[in-house]
Amino acid sequence: MPHLRSASWTLLIPAGSATDPSGRSGAAQVLNGMIYRGAGDRDARALSDAVDDLGVQRGGGVDREYMTLSGALLADDLPAALALYADIVQRPQLPVDELDAERALAVQAVQSLQDRPAQRLFQELNRIYFPGNFGRPTLGEIDELGALTPGDLQADHQARFCSDGAILAVAGGVEFEAVKATVEQLFGNWAGKGPSTPAVKLRDEPLYHHLPQDTAQTQIGVAYAGFPLGDPEYYMARLALNVLSGGMGARLFTEVREKRGLVYSVGASPRVLKGVGMVLGYAGTQPERAQETVDVLLGELRRIKAGVSADELERARTGLLAALVMAGEATGSRAGSMAADIFLLGRPRTLDEIRDAVEGVTLAALNEHVSTHAPTNFTVLTLGPAPVEIHSI
Amino acid sequence: MPHLRSASWTLLIPAGSATDPSGRSGAAQVLNGMIYRGAGDRDARALSDAVDDLGVQRGGGVDREYMTLSGALLADDLPAALALYADIVQRPQLPVDELDAERALAVQAVQSLQDRPAQRLFQELNRIYFPGNFGRPTLGEIDELGALTPGDLQADHQARFCSDGAILAVAGGVEFEAVKATVEQLFGNWAGKGPSTPAVKLRDEPLYHHLPQDTAQTQIGVAYAGFPLGDPEYYMARLALNVLSGGMGARLFTEVREKRGLVYSVGASPRVLKGVGMVLGYAGTQPERAQETVDVLLGELRRIKAGVSADELERARTGLLAALVMAGEATGSRAGSMAADIFLLGRPRTLDEIRDAVEGVTLAALNEHVSTHAPTNFTVLTLGPAPVEIHSI
Repeated sequence: MPHLRSASWTLLIPAGSATDPSGRSGAAQVLNGMIYRGAGDRDARALSDAVDDLGVQRGGGVDREYMTLSGALLADDLPAALALYADIVQRPQLPVDELDAERALAVQAVQSLQDRPAQRLFQELNRIYFPGNFGRPTLGEIDELGALTPGDLQADHQARFCSDGAILAVAGGVEFEAVKATVEQLFGNWAGKGPSTPAVKLRDEPLYHHLPQDTAQTQIGVAYAGFPLGDPEYYMARLALNVLSGGMGARLFTEVREKRGLVYSVGASPRVLKGVGMVLGYAGTQPERAQETVDVLLGELRRIKAGVSADELERARTGLLAALVMAGEATGSRAGSMAADIFLLGRPRTLDEIRDAVEGVTLAALNEHVSTHAPTNFTVLTLGPAPVEIHSI
Repeated sequence: MPHLRSASWTLLIPAGSATDPSGRSGAAQVLNGMIYRGAGDRDARALSDAVDDLGVQRGGGVDREYMTLSGALLADDLPAALALYADIVQRPQLPVDELDAERALAVQAVQSLQDRPAQRLFQELNRIYFPGNFGRPTLGEIDELGALTPGDLQADHQARFCSDGAILAVAGGVEFEAVKATVEQLFGNWAGKGPSTPAVKLRDEPLYHHLPQDTAQTQIGVAYAGFPLGDPEYYMARLALNVLSGGMGARLFTEVREKRGLVYSVGASPRVLKGVGMVLGYAGTQPERAQETVDVLLGELRRIKAGVSADELERARTGLLAALVMAGEATGSRAGSMAADIFLLGRPRTLDEIRDAVEGVTLAALNEHVSTHAPTNFTVLTLGPAPVEIHSI
């Protein structure tokens, strides 16, 4: 992207909540904070000043499979920023006397979920939709955060911050060869192989569960299986989902929100993990409208099986292709997508490749897809003053 | 931005919550939804399909002084999208039988604030910080939303959707002359002058107020006067605020979050209205840490009066300049900034002009600024299980 003066990077390290050590849920979260509290020969103050001296806008965070350390800045300053991040991931000081402050932050993030019911809903939905380690909350558990010792953190950094599986993606006004030389110099001696991440499993039986909380609105979450990146059905599933929840006239928006005024926000979005795809649906509504909302929401998800019109396909396609061009022009989005692609597929997809795949889906193929792979086996979680009745999931 | 294939626009109409008709708080919010329910000769379905046919990513919303209708799409499709929006603002159908659904959405948005305590905090802080019409919530009041009739809406559209004061800003892969010709053709017959927006007033006496709510965290909001765009102090105030709350090592982040682990998120950000500037500060913390948090937060705001170091100024400057370059490369941000500049200043600022102004601030001038214009006369609002003690504001 030679016309740009800025650049973004995403550094992905395969240390996510799914590989938090046993009894130490939240370890990745705390590590992700502690590594910024001094690295190389800079203490916390000197390190944050050095990052600010470069005007870095920091991003990233902890996910189930990995954590990302990302940033955006003027392209000319990228080598200096990468030098700081080489210290941050390879040589963090992990100061013992700052662990309590970092732990206090992590505990507060967990507690604050009580005041953010939509976020709490999805943490708990993930917990029941992913059996095993993948269901553990990325924010951690308060008692296990409390048990973390400085020794645990040191050992965890040693075990999981390894070069094997780490990915660096850069987009913006930089030249590949120059960045490559910088990276080889800065990260060339980084070594090691972390624990292998267990294969992701999704719940395959339908389930309805209610979480009582005295909220003003009932929060409704739905999870069901989708398709992973690389699957021949992937782009068809993506287009079918856009028919349900893409533009202004998409089915969920029209049927749940516009026609009936049931909810202020409603939608369904794809999530992709290694070898696995899923869809998360959401609606938040008044308790007295929760039953109708969940009925209409699940009904619309099921109804896709009956087929999609030619107009619907074209609108879904146009929306995806326009979004693709826009995302391709934004450095942060581009760097993040490339890192995720390499993690999930082993290589970055080009924008042309994605465009060709989206353009190649015919109406007949899409309708064959939706009739064979209609959403089913829903895991439904509601959070609010009262449960709803789910007749068939 | 000829290297881009995408474009963004912001259409600003000076119809915000401050000019909602008396007894009809929320009218702008409902209008902002109703105008999309059919326009020109397209009914709601045909209009949303036409917008989706162009792959438009819609944005915008209602603010105190104005509402914005914005979007992003492929640059080639901009003329077709502007044709739809010419209908949406000038010839909306405002269908009587869809008002109840739209009203239900608006009511739900208000009710959902109970489940979003940070958002509720700022709605209520604005209510006490702006005496008069500017303090009315942009989302409206439930009883006044209930009183809105179809006739009210028609009259309100007639009165406030006028060409006088409306602003269209476009950024991206388009040519100015071509867009100008399109706009003249589409909007050339648009006429009228809306009600004048009253001058903004801010509370000038300090105040502490507590709003009891049974939340897990205590939410702390602070408002105090800043400087408007165009004021000679503006860029100095902006740099001083970046010293407090810019990068990773900014004072609030360091003192409130990193050193003491008091809060997960803390910060202060500028807000500019016509002729008026202000700063909003925020922290959310455990109730037992609320007192210490508010003490440290207000203490740090006051301490800026004692001066800023040369290093702090340079880091604040670097952060602002890097953010400026990045914002200048993003079409949506550029279109939004230009529209706001024209509304506030009567003309868009160029990126060079902003850069020169930020680069021109000397340490001596900044320290003169902070010693003369230190934050004071705080309006503080807490929301949570118990109030704090404010010794001096």
